[in-house]
Amino acid sequence: MPTLKLVLDGLAEAIAADETAAAASFDARATLVGVTEVDVTTGHHTFKVDEPEALGGTDLAANPVQLVLAALGACQAITYKVWAAKLGIAIDGIEARVEGDIDLRGFFGIDESIRPGFTGIRLFVTLRGPESPERYAELIDAVDVHCPVLDVVANPVPIEREVKIADPS
Amino acid sequence: MPTLKLVLDGLAEAIAADETAAAASFDARATLVGVTEVDVTTGHHTFKVDEPEALGGTDLAANPVQLVLAALGACQAITYKVWAAKLGIAIDGIEARVEGDIDLRGFFGIDESIRPGFTGIRLFVTLRGPESPERYAELIDAVDVHCPVLDVVANPVPIEREVKIADPS
Repeated sequence: MPTLKLVLDGLAEAIAADETAAAASFDARATLVGVTEVDVTTGHHTFKVDEPEALGGTDLAANPVQLVLAALGACQAITYKVWAAKLGIAIDGIEARVEGDIDLRGFFGIDESIRPGFTGIRLFVTLRGPESPERYAELIDAVDVHCPVLDVVANPVPIEREVKIADPS
Repeated sequence: MPTLKLVLDGLAEAIAADETAAAASFDARATLVGVTEVDVTTGHHTFKVDEPEALGGTDLAANPVQLVLAALGACQAITYKVWAAKLGIAIDGIEARVEGDIDLRGFFGIDESIRPGFTGIRLFVTLRGPESPERYAELIDAVDVHCPVLDVVANPVPIEREVKIADPS
């Protein structure tokens, strides 16, 4: 198997030669199949999403806001790995723990001045490895500005939405 | 099993009686266990996150940005279901499809003016049911402002982050 650095260098070369190679598109489809149980397909992966019983669901899987925290933690871990490879910084272990607070009065419309999403997120990353603090500081700076999900959560993303009412059948 | 509406009404009453009942906290832990393979734990649910081979991974599971789209689609589906129950609007089917664009020059630092996250997201919701267009319009308006993950993606979330360098072992 090629090393991660070889794959990344190859991709960077392809993008430099033809910038349309940089355009990536992802999608997901979510279908409600139970009380709050949702079947999701993204690429060729499928999984379930649900709510805990306290929120009216059957707790079959993580709920949507837990998935966002999971995505952020995983994206941090992978971005540390990728940028360590790019910068030639050795790293032996990466773990990211993410905590997020929600005030449910927002979701339930009890107080319309409260946002329904996270009011704050705390991210705790632990790196393990043999390099100097200076080299890890360089890595941390790189990850802070290049982690896709950190960017999506910290900054606004333009969203277009369209709702279609299908004929009852 | 109590109906969704009963659970939601009970929760709303509990929150009205004691607003500390509205404070919810979620967390997730992500540990890199392979090239880009990540083990995630959130609540008592565990799953994997990985990158496709084109991005240097082993494609064992959805990647972090696909998880974000999945979370958004699932959150839309559940928020439609919850708010339909709250508003007394009948609904027989809910599906959300989400597409997101990324310019990989951002993630790889090839062009620092390009963001690493989604440059745009398109959300297509299909509802099926017997109610009038006016009632579904009322539901759509409610979901637009109360969907937690839509809020998280469309608007900035304050994030604190802390990185610890552990001793090599």
